[in-house]
Amino acid sequence: MTISYDEEFSSLMLRWRGSIWKAVLKDLIGFYIAYYIVLAFQWYLLDEKGKEYFTGWIMWCEIGAQYIPLSFLLGFFVSLIVARWWEQFNCISWPDKMMIMVSACLPGNENIVVRQTIARWSSLQAAIAWSGVSVKTLKRFPTERHMVASRLMTEEEYDLYMNTDAPHGKWFIPILWIVNLIKLQKKKGVIDSVQMDMLLKQVYSYRDGFAMLFVYDWIKIPLVYTQVVAIATYGYFFICLIGRQPKLDQRSMEKEITILFPIFTTFQMLFYLGWLKVGQYLMNPFGEDDDDFELNYVLDRNTAIAHMMATELADQLPSIGAPMVPA
Amino acid sequence: MTISYDEEFSSLMLRWRGSIWKAVLKDLIGFYIAYYIVLAFQWYLLDEKGKEYFTGWIMWCEIGAQYIPLSFLLGFFVSLIVARWWEQFNCISWPDKMMIMVSACLPGNENIVVRQTIARWSSLQAAIAWSGVSVKTLKRFPTERHMVASRLMTEEEYDLYMNTDAPHGKWFIPILWIVNLIKLQKKKGVIDSVQMDMLLKQVYSYRDGFAMLFVYDWIKIPLVYTQVVAIATYGYFFICLIGRQPKLDQRSMEKEITILFPIFTTFQMLFYLGWLKVGQYLMNPFGEDDDDFELNYVLDRNTAIAHMMATELADQLPSIGAPMVPA
Amino acid sequence: MTISYDEEFSSLMLRWRGSIWKAVLKDLIGFYIAYYIVLAFQWYLLDEKGKEYFTGWIMWCEIGAQYIPLSFLLGFFVSLIVARWWEQFNCISWPDKMMIMVSACLPGNENIVVRQTIARWSSLQAAIAWSGVSVKTLKRFPTERHMVASRLMTEEEYDLYMNTDAPHGKWFIPILWIVNLIKLQKKKGVIDSVQMDMLLKQVYSYRDGFAMLFVYDWIKIPLVYTQVVAIATYGYFFICLIGRQPKLDQRSMEKEITILFPIFTTFQMLFYLGWLKVGQYLMNPFGEDDDDFELNYVLDRNTAIAHMMATELADQLPSIGAPMVPA
Amino acid sequence: MTISYDEEFSSLMLRWRGSIWKAVLKDLIGFYIAYYIVLAFQWYLLDEKGKEYFTGWIMWCEIGAQYIPLSFLLGFFVSLIVARWWEQFNCISWPDKMMIMVSACLPGNENIVVRQTIARWSSLQAAIAWSGVSVKTLKRFPTERHMVASRLMTEEEYDLYMNTDAPHGKWFIPILWIVNLIKLQKKKGVIDSVQMDMLLKQVYSYRDGFAMLFVYDWIKIPLVYTQVVAIATYGYFFICLIGRQPKLDQRSMEKEITILFPIFTTFQMLFYLGWLKVGQYLMNPFGEDDDDFELNYVLDRNTAIAHMMATELADQLPSIGAPMVPA
Amino acid sequence: MTISYDEEFSSLMLRWRGSIWKAVLKDLIGFYIAYYIVLAFQWYLLDEKGKEYFTGWIMWCEIGAQYIPLSFLLGFFVSLIVARWWEQFNCISWPDKMMIMVSACLPGNENIVVRQTIARWSSLQAAIAWSGVSVKTLKRFPTERHMVASRLMTEEEYDLYMNTDAPHGKWFIPILWIVNLIKLQKKKGVIDSVQMDMLLKQVYSYRDGFAMLFVYDWIKIPLVYTQVVAIATYGYFFICLIGRQPKLDQRSMEKEITILFPIFTTFQMLFYLGWLKVGQYLMNPFGEDDDDFELNYVLDRNTAIAHMMATELADQLPSIGAPMVPA
Repeated sequence: MTISYDEEFSSLMLRWRGSIWKAVLKDLIGFYIAYYIVLAFQWYLLDEKGKEYFTGWIMWCEIGAQYIPLSFLLGFFVSLIVARWWEQFNCISWPDKMMIMVSACLPGNENIVVRQTIARWSSLQAAIAWSGVSVKTLKRFPTERHMVASRLMTEEEYDLYMNTDAPHGKWFIPILWIVNLIKLQKKKGVIDSVQMDMLLKQVYSYRDGFAMLFVYDWIKIPLVYTQVVAIATYGYFFICLIGRQPKLDQRSMEKEITILFPIFTTFQMLFYLGWLKVGQYLMNPFGEDDDDFELNYVLDRNTAIAHMMATELADQLPSIGAPMVPA
Repeated sequence: MTISYDEEFSSLMLRWRGSIWKAVLKDLIGFYIAYYIVLAFQWYLLDEKGKEYFTGWIMWCEIGAQYIPLSFLLGFFVSLIVARWWEQFNCISWPDKMMIMVSACLPGNENIVVRQTIARWSSLQAAIAWSGVSVKTLKRFPTERHMVASRLMTEEEYDLYMNTDAPHGKWFIPILWIVNLIKLQKKKGVIDSVQMDMLLKQVYSYRDGFAMLFVYDWIKIPLVYTQVVAIATYGYFFICLIGRQPKLDQRSMEKEITILFPIFTTFQMLFYLGWLKVGQYLMNPFGEDDDDFELNYVLDRNTAIAHMMATELADQLPSIGAPMVPA
Repeated sequence: MTISYDEEFSSLMLRWRGSIWKAVLKDLIGFYIAYYIVLAFQWYLLDEKGKEYFTGWIMWCEIGAQYIPLSFLLGFFVSLIVARWWEQFNCISWPDKMMIMVSACLPGNENIVVRQTIARWSSLQAAIAWSGVSVKTLKRFPTERHMVASRLMTEEEYDLYMNTDAPHGKWFIPILWIVNLIKLQKKKGVIDSVQMDMLLKQVYSYRDGFAMLFVYDWIKIPLVYTQVVAIATYGYFFICLIGRQPKLDQRSMEKEITILFPIFTTFQMLFYLGWLKVGQYLMNPFGEDDDDFELNYVLDRNTAIAHMMATELADQLPSIGAPMVPA
Repeated sequence: MTISYDEEFSSLMLRWRGSIWKAVLKDLIGFYIAYYIVLAFQWYLLDEKGKEYFTGWIMWCEIGAQYIPLSFLLGFFVSLIVARWWEQFNCISWPDKMMIMVSACLPGNENIVVRQTIARWSSLQAAIAWSGVSVKTLKRFPTERHMVASRLMTEEEYDLYMNTDAPHGKWFIPILWIVNLIKLQKKKGVIDSVQMDMLLKQVYSYRDGFAMLFVYDWIKIPLVYTQVVAIATYGYFFICLIGRQPKLDQRSMEKEITILFPIFTTFQMLFYLGWLKVGQYLMNPFGEDDDDFELNYVLDRNTAIAHMMATELADQLPSIGAPMVPA
Repeated sequence: MTISYDEEFSSLMLRWRGSIWKAVLKDLIGFYIAYYIVLAFQWYLLDEKGKEYFTGWIMWCEIGAQYIPLSFLLGFFVSLIVARWWEQFNCISWPDKMMIMVSACLPGNENIVVRQTIARWSSLQAAIAWSGVSVKTLKRFPTERHMVASRLMTEEEYDLYMNTDAPHGKWFIPILWIVNLIKLQKKKGVIDSVQMDMLLKQVYSYRDGFAMLFVYDWIKIPLVYTQVVAIATYGYFFICLIGRQPKLDQRSMEKEITILFPIFTTFQMLFYLGWLKVGQYLMNPFGEDDDDFELNYVLDRNTAIAHMMATELADQLPSIGAPMVPA
């Protein structure tokens, strides 16, 4: 579930769920262990000669670490990912506008069954489509039988759906049912061509979200790009394992102070790795991370709202006797 | 309230409301206090040996501060925030186009009550929706009774609204009333299908702004990203607490000049922290900061304009006797 | 007036109007004066001891200047401003498409008065709205009487307009007149619903430009951001006043060559300040700078074109006897 | 075929297809060979004097390599390419919405032949158009006869198509057939003007994708830009051939440690060259690289879906007897 | 003409037309000449004392060159230019969609003259409008008589056009003729309001491209920005004239190797100047550079296609006897 936060900035720092602390903890511990193994090796196993030689390596790695333009790579990469992440969120379909249009064009008690069916099919459509892109929705509806169990699908619809043989996908079938139901109203003369156009526009825009989610799921950021960034980041800290060691030979210890904790490297891990994790979390926004979109919640909300708009609110209208002017 | 400024550039620098001076003052004072505590410690409590050792720490922190790519992090982060901030502003709904269309399709004295009611409901819609995203609007209308008191809502509407049971939100109900009222005009034959389409398009675009504001309110910039930037910025100045101390041991004082005020660090705080504050202010544009959007003002403006368009201006038309050609 | 340029690149460098030379001249002269005052102070008033001490300051300022990430700040800031500037330009409303549609839906001699009136009102609308955002247009029409004098407004319209009491603005009244005039044609049966829709779409898109200009005028780039950039830039050159002084003590003069003109700093002022000026000019594109949009010219152009489309060109059609095939 | 990946991040690193390892392998091997040739030359052929002189060259190249702002060039360039690549993907036309509209406006068994023909022509259109931009599609349909063989085209259509003399291209002919078929339905009175508009809108948006792909194919990133980036990248590693050699003269070997493997340069090749390869792969997304869009697969999918929508699903509608409320 | 390239990457490097080699050649030669004049001066005219002093200048210029953030300036500037360049390309109007709509709404042999005339006027429109923005199109049609000669315009149209007095431009007149011709069909009852709307939408979108091109031609990137970038780039290489000279005094020649060819500077010119040239070429995309859009070719293509769509293809329809299913 995406994490909302409205608190003060300082208290934001202390959050755990979806926080930087949680994101980098594992990597940080791993780094410390490796770092102190190297340090112990240097301290206990090397003689003065060896320490001097090791100091050469440290200096060499210090220079080497500067060759890696981490902030650029991460800056450009995370920009790209954040843009995609937000676009993906905007591909989440909401049935509100479709259902308002349905209530506008198919009013009255005589159309309530049609409205309710369209409302239910809109949820069925979401359940089918989102199972294809979100792990959590798939867990909720592992098979189409679970949709029947949740009363999103009738037995007849189940049979129709399962009997359709479509090797290239059939997630759009409920949309077609909605279209065919609207078409039937046109044939019956309940709506005219203009209203059919108005209705279909909303159905189409409801459909587009699902189609785009499949596209985002299919076409990822090119693998090479992801690898480039990961190699640069982890490689950087790998080099730091040596390059940020204290220099323990005689000469260096006289010249420089010797600090046995890699404080700046810890710091760098916090924001470089944190930055990378931003990218990794957002790259797959429908997974099970703390910051992922909660499609199951959206589905429940949509089912409730669509039903309400199809029934209770469809024709609700206060009397407009004497107009009132706001103060 | 957002702050407009048209003055000369130089006088802009001296502004207080919404200014950089106000933004960084508190942090700057805190920094000075900590800085001089460290300085006093160095000056009074350390002997020459200790000062030399401390100089080692200073030099070490000087290097450490360079590891932090602050300008990149802030540059990419603030770009993202500014883009979102402007998009959010563009989600503020204005009823002008909807009301012009209402006056176009429902002209004459016979429709004035309908027009006035739609105008009032448009304000009611804004009051309900903006209470959900803006602290200031919520303070103005803490409960729906306050809307009744402001004559935005009749008692009958209040009852209808309060009796609707909607665990997943019901902020869109006034929009549905408007739609249902338009639908009634269609049924009565006052408008045809094409005009209904024209009206509903405007109602929809009025609605979309509210829906998007809820979305922006719900899906924030991922927490990790915000934390990364804050840690980098504050961490940088924390390192500067030591790294920008004057070196007080004998050798250094001979080699370098000793300056007891961190002038460049002050400078850096001004623009690095200032830049960060830009981000923090704009991240939540409907709060109570100096630079936040003033939705209450917009609501008053909209109420007045919508009413005027529904009544006085709805059919105002100068005579077009003899055409006049502009000189 | 925006400055067009088609010349060769080299001759572009020698332009004065809207050029970098004009933009930075004042600041550059100010810098030179201050620089040589400091230099004179160093040269004449300091003894060798003082010069050595001053050299310490110079070196310290040299380092300090590097702490300022000017190119980043300016790069991100100017990108943002240039984007807004271009968006604002695209908000300038042109009546062409509205008038073509008017001539398409209201053809013939019988509708010429209607067409001419809409043409005139479109210019009146621009005059009223642009007076609110552009200093130059306000100077041209300081009061509504000046619009009457320019024959943009009749006396009757003037009365109607002035008698409308609208504390929250009434710039959109001419648009409402156009809408009401179109509505009248619908009532008379000259146009049908579809044509009314076609006409109103064009009227709306004509209106949108004005509304957006008001928005851009109201919601500026946050003050803090502007201040951050200005402080960084001017602060940088302030530090350079000392940091780029020649070192005049004995030791330094032996080691380094002594150059008494800050040639590289001049160079840096040219492009850093020039870059900042790009931002400052474009931030307020309807002012009186060389590079500002010339709305008065656009208004004249629009008045002429709208009139021409309403009269002479409204029904112009060559005979289409024998079709001709282009060679 | 674009490469989807859902695995854990760590295992992503070990992938071969479409991976960084595959991308840079050839260049890396070439670099090693050249590097060790230079090293051997230095080691075996140079005397101490020569080695000292060569060390001068190494240091000079070390400095020279810093003059190349590789991360910037690559950052801006790859951003641009990735944006274009994604836009190009979004230009891939899907017939779904067109076919749904066809089934909505031309329902029933009486129109099944029309629907099926439109479905087939939509695939024919894709086959013709994509042959013009994708090497793989061209290999599948080297001539129009192959389309006849795949039953995308009848003999009559083949003759009509081949007999059209169009020096400036005729890829859009199947679209025209679809339009003309729709026009015929209008003439027959099967659809009205509004439905014709609805249908043509979908046909147009289907067509637009093909047109845009031709545009992207025609107007490439300017050659100079591509060359600038390639020269900078390969030039950088060319300089590294010398600049990253171990210094083998007496003095240097005492001062520094001597490492005979260019470990950091290997590292830099991984991400700099990897980054460049991202750009080169995505620049031509319809080629035969691992990461390229698989238009042939899309064509098969589209053919199957369009046919299914034209026949089986065109009027499928479950009974809507008793409405069911989702649990 | 824009340069397409599909070859292998390595062979791309060897291209001449539109290549980096062509772009920087002149400047590079100029640089070499100046460089060797300075070198000759240093070598022959300076004594040891003078050489030492000159070495001071070289070192001073080496530092000075680092003050110029060329990669940033160029990165941001070229990004902006490339974006505008692509937008401008997308403003090129193609008559395809307009002509398809014309054939859809005005079918049959009875309308062929109307269709052909609209096709010709669409080319006439392009010829007139593009003459205003493209040097090459202006050379092809220096006067309106040349359009008559190319059979784009009849004598009657020529008279009508030339007799229209329009100080503020009249490039849109052929569009108005098209609109008026469509309007006539409406009056005759050949099309209804909905079809008129469909036709006018396409005419408008055809028109919009021309209008936007005029806008891009009128409002250029602000002059200051262009100058800032040019000064920074050329200034950088001017400083390099001295800063990259070999140091010829005794001491330096012992310490460093002396190389008499500015190899890295050559390299930098290749990509810095190349990058700048990308910007300069794309800034004016309708000129006569190798990489410029070839509007004359587009005009020929459009004339041919529009004619073909108006005549031969307007009603072409294969028989749809027995539906065929693609294999």
